[in-house]
Amino acid sequence: MNYLHSRLDLHRFQRLGMVEAIWGEHKTVEQLVEILESLKKLGKLAFVTRVNQEKAGKLIDLFKTAQFHEDAHCLTLGDPLIEDNSLGMVVILSGGTSDLKVAAEAELALRWHGIKTKLLLDVGVAGLHRLLSSLKNIEESKVLIACAGMEGALPTVLAGLMPQPVIGVPVSVGYGVSEKGNASLNGMLASCAPGLSVVNIDNGYGAAMAALRILKCNRTSSSKCD
Amino acid sequence: MNYLHSRLDLHRFQRLGMVEAIWGEHKTVEQLVEILESLKKLGKLAFVTRVNQEKAGKLIDLFKTAQFHEDAHCLTLGDPLIEDNSLGMVVILSGGTSDLKVAAEAELALRWHGIKTKLLLDVGVAGLHRLLSSLKNIEESKVLIACAGMEGALPTVLAGLMPQPVIGVPVSVGYGVSEKGNASLNGMLASCAPGLSVVNIDNGYGAAMAALRILKCNRTSSSKCD
Amino acid sequence: MNYLHSRLDLHRFQRLGMVEAIWGEHKTVEQLVEILESLKKLGKLAFVTRVNQEKAGKLIDLFKTAQFHEDAHCLTLGDPLIEDNSLGMVVILSGGTSDLKVAAEAELALRWHGIKTKLLLDVGVAGLHRLLSSLKNIEESKVLIACAGMEGALPTVLAGLMPQPVIGVPVSVGYGVSEKGNASLNGMLASCAPGLSVVNIDNGYGAAMAALRILKCNRTSSSKCD
Amino acid sequence: MNYLHSRLDLHRFQRLGMVEAIWGEHKTVEQLVEILESLKKLGKLAFVTRVNQEKAGKLIDLFKTAQFHEDAHCLTLGDPLIEDNSLGMVVILSGGTSDLKVAAEAELALRWHGIKTKLLLDVGVAGLHRLLSSLKNIEESKVLIACAGMEGALPTVLAGLMPQPVIGVPVSVGYGVSEKGNASLNGMLASCAPGLSVVNIDNGYGAAMAALRILKCNRTSSSKCD
Amino acid sequence: MNYLHSRLDLHRFQRLGMVEAIWGEHKTVEQLVEILESLKKLGKLAFVTRVNQEKAGKLIDLFKTAQFHEDAHCLTLGDPLIEDNSLGMVVILSGGTSDLKVAAEAELALRWHGIKTKLLLDVGVAGLHRLLSSLKNIEESKVLIACAGMEGALPTVLAGLMPQPVIGVPVSVGYGVSEKGNASLNGMLASCAPGLSVVNIDNGYGAAMAALRILKCNRTSSSKCD
Amino acid sequence: MNYLHSRLDLHRFQRLGMVEAIWGEHKTVEQLVEILESLKKLGKLAFVTRVNQEKAGKLIDLFKTAQFHEDAHCLTLGDPLIEDNSLGMVVILSGGTSDLKVAAEAELALRWHGIKTKLLLDVGVAGLHRLLSSLKNIEESKVLIACAGMEGALPTVLAGLMPQPVIGVPVSVGYGVSEKGNASLNGMLASCAPGLSVVNIDNGYGAAMAALRILKCNRTSSSKCD
Amino acid sequence: MNYLHSRLDLHRFQRLGMVEAIWGEHKTVEQLVEILESLKKLGKLAFVTRVNQEKAGKLIDLFKTAQFHEDAHCLTLGDPLIEDNSLGMVVILSGGTSDLKVAAEAELALRWHGIKTKLLLDVGVAGLHRLLSSLKNIEESKVLIACAGMEGALPTVLAGLMPQPVIGVPVSVGYGVSEKGNASLNGMLASCAPGLSVVNIDNGYGAAMAALRILKCNRTSSSKCD
Amino acid sequence: MNYLHSRLDLHRFQRLGMVEAIWGEHKTVEQLVEILESLKKLGKLAFVTRVNQEKAGKLIDLFKTAQFHEDAHCLTLGDPLIEDNSLGMVVILSGGTSDLKVAAEAELALRWHGIKTKLLLDVGVAGLHRLLSSLKNIEESKVLIACAGMEGALPTVLAGLMPQPVIGVPVSVGYGVSEKGNASLNGMLASCAPGLSVVNIDNGYGAAMAALRILKCNRTSSSKCD
Repeated sequence: MNYLHSRLDLHRFQRLGMVEAIWGEHKTVEQLVEILESLKKLGKLAFVTRVNQEKAGKLIDLFKTAQFHEDAHCLTLGDPLIEDNSLGMVVILSGGTSDLKVAAEAELALRWHGIKTKLLLDVGVAGLHRLLSSLKNIEESKVLIACAGMEGALPTVLAGLMPQPVIGVPVSVGYGVSEKGNASLNGMLASCAPGLSVVNIDNGYGAAMAALRILKCNRTSSSKCD
Repeated sequence: MNYLHSRLDLHRFQRLGMVEAIWGEHKTVEQLVEILESLKKLGKLAFVTRVNQEKAGKLIDLFKTAQFHEDAHCLTLGDPLIEDNSLGMVVILSGGTSDLKVAAEAELALRWHGIKTKLLLDVGVAGLHRLLSSLKNIEESKVLIACAGMEGALPTVLAGLMPQPVIGVPVSVGYGVSEKGNASLNGMLASCAPGLSVVNIDNGYGAAMAALRILKCNRTSSSKCD
Repeated sequence: MNYLHSRLDLHRFQRLGMVEAIWGEHKTVEQLVEILESLKKLGKLAFVTRVNQEKAGKLIDLFKTAQFHEDAHCLTLGDPLIEDNSLGMVVILSGGTSDLKVAAEAELALRWHGIKTKLLLDVGVAGLHRLLSSLKNIEESKVLIACAGMEGALPTVLAGLMPQPVIGVPVSVGYGVSEKGNASLNGMLASCAPGLSVVNIDNGYGAAMAALRILKCNRTSSSKCD
Repeated sequence: MNYLHSRLDLHRFQRLGMVEAIWGEHKTVEQLVEILESLKKLGKLAFVTRVNQEKAGKLIDLFKTAQFHEDAHCLTLGDPLIEDNSLGMVVILSGGTSDLKVAAEAELALRWHGIKTKLLLDVGVAGLHRLLSSLKNIEESKVLIACAGMEGALPTVLAGLMPQPVIGVPVSVGYGVSEKGNASLNGMLASCAPGLSVVNIDNGYGAAMAALRILKCNRTSSSKCD
Repeated sequence: MNYLHSRLDLHRFQRLGMVEAIWGEHKTVEQLVEILESLKKLGKLAFVTRVNQEKAGKLIDLFKTAQFHEDAHCLTLGDPLIEDNSLGMVVILSGGTSDLKVAAEAELALRWHGIKTKLLLDVGVAGLHRLLSSLKNIEESKVLIACAGMEGALPTVLAGLMPQPVIGVPVSVGYGVSEKGNASLNGMLASCAPGLSVVNIDNGYGAAMAALRILKCNRTSSSKCD
Repeated sequence: MNYLHSRLDLHRFQRLGMVEAIWGEHKTVEQLVEILESLKKLGKLAFVTRVNQEKAGKLIDLFKTAQFHEDAHCLTLGDPLIEDNSLGMVVILSGGTSDLKVAAEAELALRWHGIKTKLLLDVGVAGLHRLLSSLKNIEESKVLIACAGMEGALPTVLAGLMPQPVIGVPVSVGYGVSEKGNASLNGMLASCAPGLSVVNIDNGYGAAMAALRILKCNRTSSSKCD
Repeated sequence: MNYLHSRLDLHRFQRLGMVEAIWGEHKTVEQLVEILESLKKLGKLAFVTRVNQEKAGKLIDLFKTAQFHEDAHCLTLGDPLIEDNSLGMVVILSGGTSDLKVAAEAELALRWHGIKTKLLLDVGVAGLHRLLSSLKNIEESKVLIACAGMEGALPTVLAGLMPQPVIGVPVSVGYGVSEKGNASLNGMLASCAPGLSVVNIDNGYGAAMAALRILKCNRTSSSKCD
Repeated sequence: MNYLHSRLDLHRFQRLGMVEAIWGEHKTVEQLVEILESLKKLGKLAFVTRVNQEKAGKLIDLFKTAQFHEDAHCLTLGDPLIEDNSLGMVVILSGGTSDLKVAAEAELALRWHGIKTKLLLDVGVAGLHRLLSSLKNIEESKVLIACAGMEGALPTVLAGLMPQPVIGVPVSVGYGVSEKGNASLNGMLASCAPGLSVVNIDNGYGAAMAALRILKCNRTSSSKCD
């Protein structure tokens, strides 16, 4: 069977200001190699999410400029964009240590786009003092990304306390009713805190891109985004 | 058709220490009248939950000692048990004004069994200072009942702050993913706060009875409940 | 029964820069009157969502400065904040005429906070040319809010075309699998467009507040929000 | 235990014009061998879906005329039907590279029944220009099969642009709310594009047979199908 | 609030060969009047689905050429397209009398587009002889539309017997697990009959448009649809 | 930790006429050994369901009178009850070869209780003639057990044709909407055929015991079961 | 529109031994009149389920031999079959008074087919002594039908105590997680009691027909049902 | 990437009287080592839940005072609190042997906090006599914890018989509708027994902490918990 090869969305950077991102989980190593080869030839950067250790090992052997980020389960090709402090900082918070993978994916994706970040783990609301004593660290942030599994109450409490944009990321950590992250997702969507917005379960990358859109479109005082 | 009539569970008081309770929502006025007549003849108290204004009106006309409690949507027959302060107090909290119906059902059910109660509305976690500034009022409570709709985070935050038994009651107030109270229910079950227990959505009466069991079984230092 | 009265979250404006908002759907007229009285005495503005014609009629009779916004099913007390063009404009798009209620709630909530808005109806993706020919109108917007029922594909297509923050609002318009807006919600969460964030079904108000957070926190070039 | 052996539906070809198809996933190698033996003796063709590499290896060793199609995870016995161009062509589109397995199953099933096909990958709607620039290739197709995971918006956009029959195939590629393909399925069923029809998640074979029915029943201008 | 008015998708007829269709259920009478006025001015036909008796009454008073089709709950504006027998006939079957509304919507939508139709009620599979004795009537049909509530087995049995395209329409008739038509929908999607395709629950109009696409694209022996 | 050991329900045979059955899937080999030892000492028979090859191997090594039934994934201890033809025969039907495991469990469980059985595979309704031509074999059966995955229509068609008790067993064979057997379960529960009853997904043993209850309680013409 | 009229399944009595039954809930009065007229002309009996007071009133005015059974929400046409005591008795149990409607439908349907019945209300398992003290009454029954809402534990406890066939009927009485009867349905399907079979939620009629099949097929000692 | 390290909730013991507990399932060995090191340095006890054999082996090699509790899948660091009989005893019951893991987690967690416990396995309600004959053993218990999979009826029957607080723990043992413990969870929440409260599926630890809260807050007759 002859079929037309993968068409990369090569204008994404121009259109949206984002590095080409590849969803790695459901792709074979062969498919990933083919895609990365194309990007390499075009001198493009690449950001591959949801890559396990084994796939990563094979890809790193083949691509010199590839780098595996173990905490975030991501693989990058090429160098990150130069940090641009004028865009402001993003703080990524997580309820527990188990949420690290998702929080790290968000952190890495922002850092790779030149955004300054800070990661704040283990500030879940069942031990409220941990969050309350961290508020100072959060104040300077332009955007807050809050990752939480279980009942997912962290973004709700946070968005009730702070005026910044808060992006909730439900995490598939839990068991029973919270096994796949649905309790957390619904808790965030149902939040009584005004103006909390949400992305798909475990979608650290998506939260990062939502934050990037916010930072970029407000960089200048002109009315038009750039 | 001739069928065997409703058998009241007349030993419930002796066995469990609870007044006969009747689930009013799916019963016709005729069925309720029949049941209340039987109880009246036996000199028993009755506690009917989920009775609307219309049904209540008809029943009050027929039974002199019946009383309708509008906030709680409950109807009682006979006098409440005498308040027994030695059992300790129960505080019932709610996230918002819309949760009143359920909180009031819990409060009434406890009061009707002779328990001292306090009701604390509008302490939802999206405005955290309201809860934090109320903690003093809560300290003296033997058991806490926390009613919340939407994302249902109140009992989680509460159980992380206070050592008492906390019973979460999800409330069917919300829309979209929280329309029927499921987001709230799952949030409470998935809670990362240790030792929070939960009853069915809108089950204020059930939470009250769970609190009653707790208070009664610990009244004396003997090992056996009475 | 004597219970503690509704505690309004009176510091919300200072903390989050938002007018006091009241969820109207599950509250009785009596409860709303009590709350609005309190706010009026304190000289506060109020924004009541999900009020039907009947409730609104009764409230308008009692409060001189109240105004009912029929399209949006909202009632306001007092005057809107003065329009502040420096914050930039928000375009609210909707897939079909049936989504008007939700889109109008978002539009009104922003306008009431002094934000300039534009409403663009009937640009659903099944007639793609309608959206493509409207892109010019969208370019100047700082934030995009996209409301859609049925399959909810509008925000996905939009976020693939435009670099701004896009907030998706699923609308409970549909039947069968899309009856309550769940197909639309899940479609938006599952979107393959990077950086789309989502609020609860029909939550026009929430989307507006998410947009407000974005606009406000980026007003100045300083790193701290105000 | 003696039980009656598998009864093949041997008249399917006469009745429906389709090659005998065997669902391979939940069958053991032993069961598949027994079935293929029977068909071979009768001189019949066979089309086995959802066969993994390991099962395929064992079967190919046993049957000379068997062939494994790796992309499609299908195994065939015997030669395909002779291509009949008079029936027209079918284009199979997919949103991303990860959908290949399902798209390839559809393509193979049609090709095996003598239908001319074209496969068009990576035309997902988050990069709309890829689809728009491919419309020329699609015009000549008699039927369109659109495979998509995630939010599954491709068939909706397609059916809004093109007049042919469009068959949507949800693909179980995604995570969180789209993990098993349900978001995609519901998105297609809820589509606001008129006349889009849908098959089960990952059912590339079913979509192919639906297309075959369409092509065959309209071959002649007579009113009766043949 | 001034917002941009409803944009009708006026090129739909040219693009897809379909009369402008309006989803009537979630629109107010005012919204429908506005839309119908626009179409009338442009000399266009209109097909409004899911209109109840009350709405229909008001609209018929205002529009001379409007007509209400009670069985189908649809309202039409203008005359149907002239019947074109060369396109072939469509038989619409239903499992029970209760499915009439949906079957009638499909039948009307096709008839309105000039297609010859036949309606065959009460051929549910629990009394199989009714279907088997009707097969003769079905043979001449180019496309079959099968509407069924409850367990929805009719299209499965039908697609196992007949070679034509079969479009299943789940109907929201039932109770318990089949209350909203989901059991029927899933039964059709899960069907073991090859090549059955499905539309949303109660979507008679959608099934009709899917059938129309099939009939039109195969009218001529040329490879391109018209 | 010292805990009270497993209490076998040793009176089950006297009370219900059933051999002691043990659910094997969630038990460790150690737990099963302990249970089987107890039964052996008491001279009891045992019927262990859902045992995989590996567990079975270990158990067979330890217990001389144990026997593994591979098709049914069951292990038995001791000899079956003597066949009692006076109770009548049960025919177990299945839609496809993939349902064998469940059908075999039902067949074995009945045979082990002394019931005469017949197994009829591959009579799914998508090839209706296979079922219709088998009706003669079914007529003599006292009870019918119909196992089906996918859309699960077999018991519906069967119960519409035959007067005997029909017990439907949904099978977890399928993919997409039918992946875990839910489509099949709901299809059977929603059946429009009168008097079809259903057991849990894959519960071949349960269906067998339901059949056994039917056969036993009607053996004599006396009014009391024995 | 001319369509083929409702085809009654007139051979059902011969085939299955059941009176013609009509599902009344989703049919208009006009449709019911038409069906009953046909049956009356043919001298057939009819059993219409799920008829409300209003519909019943209109039908009774038109048909002399019609009778409305208020408890059961059923309407019958003609006289019941003559009681045949040789078939044995069926006891119908219910957990609470609220389940009466469903239990009464089952009872009436059996009585209408000439079966002797007994109805035993309010034997729910939360007051276990009520069930235990009724066991004597149950012993003589050939088949047991157990109706229960809420958690639906009654049939499980019953099937653990008694050897007869037990048919569980989940009832849509409850709230929160048990609102539509799903908790009860799943509880019955998941039962650890061997040989319990289940019908759809509220399907009293179906349970009755399942019982009828059991009684009829075992009347004689011959191997063939009659 | 440098991120802030895990913040242990070190005041939990003072605040809630509970040993530091760590959720082990979604943490890597490295994460667990880091956390246990911190606690060890601080001289704290630790209770790690959901640790498998493999993880436990590695941890035990590293920490001298660590102990693995195989039945409960828990690992402890340090010695348990000294048994305090004045707090009273807790009986943990389970429906079947398969529920052991969850029951053992609850038992161990209580014992580790100095509470006297008794474990009573295999008292499921399908063999009711086993529960009824154990009631004597239960009477002395201050709190009852009832673990059950499948239909989860045990806590309902128990709470109907006994006056103590009953905490239901659904167990993820089952298949089909009860596969993940949801049938059991919903059955417990929907229970008709008054005052039963519930924790998440498999949450033995949570049930233990709920029991601990009850015991501790009632130790003295003073109104304030300690």
